[in-house]
Amino acid sequence: MEDKLQELKTHFSEIGDLNSAASLLSWDQMTNMPPGGAPARARQMALLKRLAHEKLIDPALGKLLDELQPYEASLPFDSDDASLIRIARRDYEQAIKVPPQLLAEIENHAAAAFQVWNEARPANNFAAVQPYLEKTLELSRQLADCFPGYEHIADPLIDHADYGMKASSVSAIFAELRDQLVPIVQAITAQPPADDSCLRQHFPEAQQWEFGLDVVRRFGYDFQRGRQDKAPHPFTTEFSIGDVRITTRVEEHFLAEALFATMHEAGHAMYEQGSDPGYEGTPLAGGTSSGVHESQSRLWENVVGRSRGFWTFYYPKLQEVFPDQLGSVSLDSFYRAINKVERSLIRTAADEVTYNLHVMLRFDFELAMLEGNLAVKDLPEAWRERFKADLGIVPPDDRDGVMQDIHWYFGIVGGMFQGYTLGNILCTQFYDAALQAHPEIPGEIEQGEFGTLLGWLQENIYQHGRKFTTSELVDRVTGGPISIEPYIRYLRNKYGALYEL
Amino acid sequence: MEDKLQELKTHFSEIGDLNSAASLLSWDQMTNMPPGGAPARARQMALLKRLAHEKLIDPALGKLLDELQPYEASLPFDSDDASLIRIARRDYEQAIKVPPQLLAEIENHAAAAFQVWNEARPANNFAAVQPYLEKTLELSRQLADCFPGYEHIADPLIDHADYGMKASSVSAIFAELRDQLVPIVQAITAQPPADDSCLRQHFPEAQQWEFGLDVVRRFGYDFQRGRQDKAPHPFTTEFSIGDVRITTRVEEHFLAEALFATMHEAGHAMYEQGSDPGYEGTPLAGGTSSGVHESQSRLWENVVGRSRGFWTFYYPKLQEVFPDQLGSVSLDSFYRAINKVERSLIRTAADEVTYNLHVMLRFDFELAMLEGNLAVKDLPEAWRERFKADLGIVPPDDRDGVMQDIHWYFGIVGGMFQGYTLGNILCTQFYDAALQAHPEIPGEIEQGEFGTLLGWLQENIYQHGRKFTTSELVDRVTGGPISIEPYIRYLRNKYGALYEL
Repeated sequence: MEDKLQELKTHFSEIGDLNSAASLLSWDQMTNMPPGGAPARARQMALLKRLAHEKLIDPALGKLLDELQPYEASLPFDSDDASLIRIARRDYEQAIKVPPQLLAEIENHAAAAFQVWNEARPANNFAAVQPYLEKTLELSRQLADCFPGYEHIADPLIDHADYGMKASSVSAIFAELRDQLVPIVQAITAQPPADDSCLRQHFPEAQQWEFGLDVVRRFGYDFQRGRQDKAPHPFTTEFSIGDVRITTRVEEHFLAEALFATMHEAGHAMYEQGSDPGYEGTPLAGGTSSGVHESQSRLWENVVGRSRGFWTFYYPKLQEVFPDQLGSVSLDSFYRAINKVERSLIRTAADEVTYNLHVMLRFDFELAMLEGNLAVKDLPEAWRERFKADLGIVPPDDRDGVMQDIHWYFGIVGGMFQGYTLGNILCTQFYDAALQAHPEIPGEIEQGEFGTLLGWLQENIYQHGRKFTTSELVDRVTGGPISIEPYIRYLRNKYGALYEL
Repeated sequence: MEDKLQELKTHFSEIGDLNSAASLLSWDQMTNMPPGGAPARARQMALLKRLAHEKLIDPALGKLLDELQPYEASLPFDSDDASLIRIARRDYEQAIKVPPQLLAEIENHAAAAFQVWNEARPANNFAAVQPYLEKTLELSRQLADCFPGYEHIADPLIDHADYGMKASSVSAIFAELRDQLVPIVQAITAQPPADDSCLRQHFPEAQQWEFGLDVVRRFGYDFQRGRQDKAPHPFTTEFSIGDVRITTRVEEHFLAEALFATMHEAGHAMYEQGSDPGYEGTPLAGGTSSGVHESQSRLWENVVGRSRGFWTFYYPKLQEVFPDQLGSVSLDSFYRAINKVERSLIRTAADEVTYNLHVMLRFDFELAMLEGNLAVKDLPEAWRERFKADLGIVPPDDRDGVMQDIHWYFGIVGGMFQGYTLGNILCTQFYDAALQAHPEIPGEIEQGEFGTLLGWLQENIYQHGRKFTTSELVDRVTGGPISIEPYIRYLRNKYGALYEL
């Protein structure tokens, strides 16, 4: 059995290495590549991904997994070997259900749709993307139909990003959240908006860059196993457990842009860096789901990075870096500025309270489109109506309405958005559990110390990589299912104090 | 036949893409990678190279090449299609002769030997590398023996870098060169050395960097299809014709380091950027041999970049950038400083006159070791003797003697060095031919204009990529064989004037 297990590891190590090479080519494209490199780069990435996929659907792998079944059954569920075989089988079985032709069609169409969207969005031309989005929807349905026996047609697509979750379970959580959230948003936005003009001065890039690096170094992001570069859209990528890189985008006239993006991406990256080193090159390395991944970026960005305690320590340092800009701005004013809540158009720029309304709207539209209850041609109007109902404002155009996110124009419709709000919910559940174990954490954060928090996350979440599903992990950590209660309490406490609700 | 030809192109495009991906991983390792990435990176590069090699020795490729033979025979020798099939067959036939186990053994041994050398060199410990170098020599012999029928055991290894050249042909050229060169070196070094203290002041990195970029941009290195980064040892690498990158190393206390490295690498890079765009993804793209490649780096670095004409235009600009350091240094003094000739220990830092003595010594030792006429254990002593005879100085230790170059400690013994001096010879042959066609070139260089020269190189050398062998190319360009005459004339003219010989 030792031999077979080693064979499995070698097989997946090669799949992982091909995917990591493709990721490096992609990272380079976003950070360094001269324009002339584009045509060959697309061809090279496609080849690497194809070779990785061919290895993943290799019938010899299926046979090997069958042979390893008795060994797996003889081991405890959460042992490394049993988990390796279990997750490897899950990846294999998901992959073989999709015909390679469909996969290729989805990828080719995504590339074409992205090109069109990239020009149509600035031109506010929904008519141009509509046929592409219709085709994307059709392909998404075909993809879902590769997994017969679903309860809702979105289920296989949600499952792909957040294994074990379904349209019904996500909808139930979201409905509960929505009931609690809408009154909070209404109460806050009934008051005069916070003044964030202190963030909208001139902050030279070099100092912003250094400050952000200092913050995430203190968080515990390991620069011996990572680095930060500039990219038009911030992202995190990993080539091994020993090389997990972040990117950020600097706006010299808006201080919050680079700093919080750096914290956010470092959250993702610390999760990836934290996998058990023994999982290197196996399917156990990495993050278990989009929801848990997002819980870590949001935890470090919002729960820590936008907390009063964090800035008790860091604000004097920031004032030292930017004395002219912030020397006469009080901590209170700065804290209110970075937590300004407002009804706004753009999801990625939304505050942590209204953000979820943006996400839930998209999630509901994905279900409705997949069900056939919402036609693509009716999407812009539906978007405006729902936006008015939920956020009280109407997007003036489709560019900053239904065309704002890349997701539907460079992938599939379905499973693309629920992870963002699941992440908001999970991060406070996890943080509460950490505080129960270590009530000293908030005091440490006020001292600029993050080791106890990181250690707890490492021990309870990061080291496990993909071993446990979202639900299994939440159950292990909190002793129960996903619950919105900690998140609502967090919002009430934080924003209750800020807005004297 | 169209179908078969397309099949061949697709096959080689995939080989090229895997190798290009490996090159990007290697580039990233030298420029960006955090230390923690090293173990996985080595594994990933090895996998990509193995997959590329497997595709190259695929028996189906041999069959395809056989089927294409009649088509090739029906075409003119220098047509693109015939050349594609010819060069593809050459690559295939070279590759299939080497058993994969031997190739793997060479690569594994190279990695081990490099580790040992990397520590032994600073410790001046030749005893530590000796058994590794003995093994390298043994593997090099085995590699040569995969190509039976050679005249000299070094021939297959020389052939690999400089296709069509042999130990005998290179030795004949080198013997002739040596006879002419030694008296020139003696005449120069009998005089007081040039004063290069003006180069050894403090020159801040940022200004050095910008100045170097400006120079190579004017040469014609295309930054839409390239970029420059920092690396411990400067190199050029290409991921496609549209993405050819250079690197340099900056010394703040020695102006000549970064600037001439940038020019040198840009010479390599312009050659690669210049391949016919239709060769993209085929074995015709790239440089035809190490000698011709080196001729382009040396041409731009030395023939252009260390010429009086070049600095007539550029020196006032350099003085503007560094007024405190160079404001009171005359053009004559500066020109003498950058062309200082001296008997020195290190090949890579040697001037363009003595450089060839360093190379010829290594070439002769490679032949002697492969022949069995020089044992590895006797190499340090042989090095000291030959160094004394050729350069009149004795290396004080092995660190700056026989252990200074990475080549024998990270590859094979044989074929590693002749390209450097062939490049010096070829670059003046090519330059002479360019001047015959365009006598206005030196005048243009004095105006900071390089378009005519680059255009001629592009037309006569770069666009052909690997289509012609070194000899074929030299014959097409100069109407004759490789000749040292232009090079000797160049040295006599330039250094005759500088040293009033």
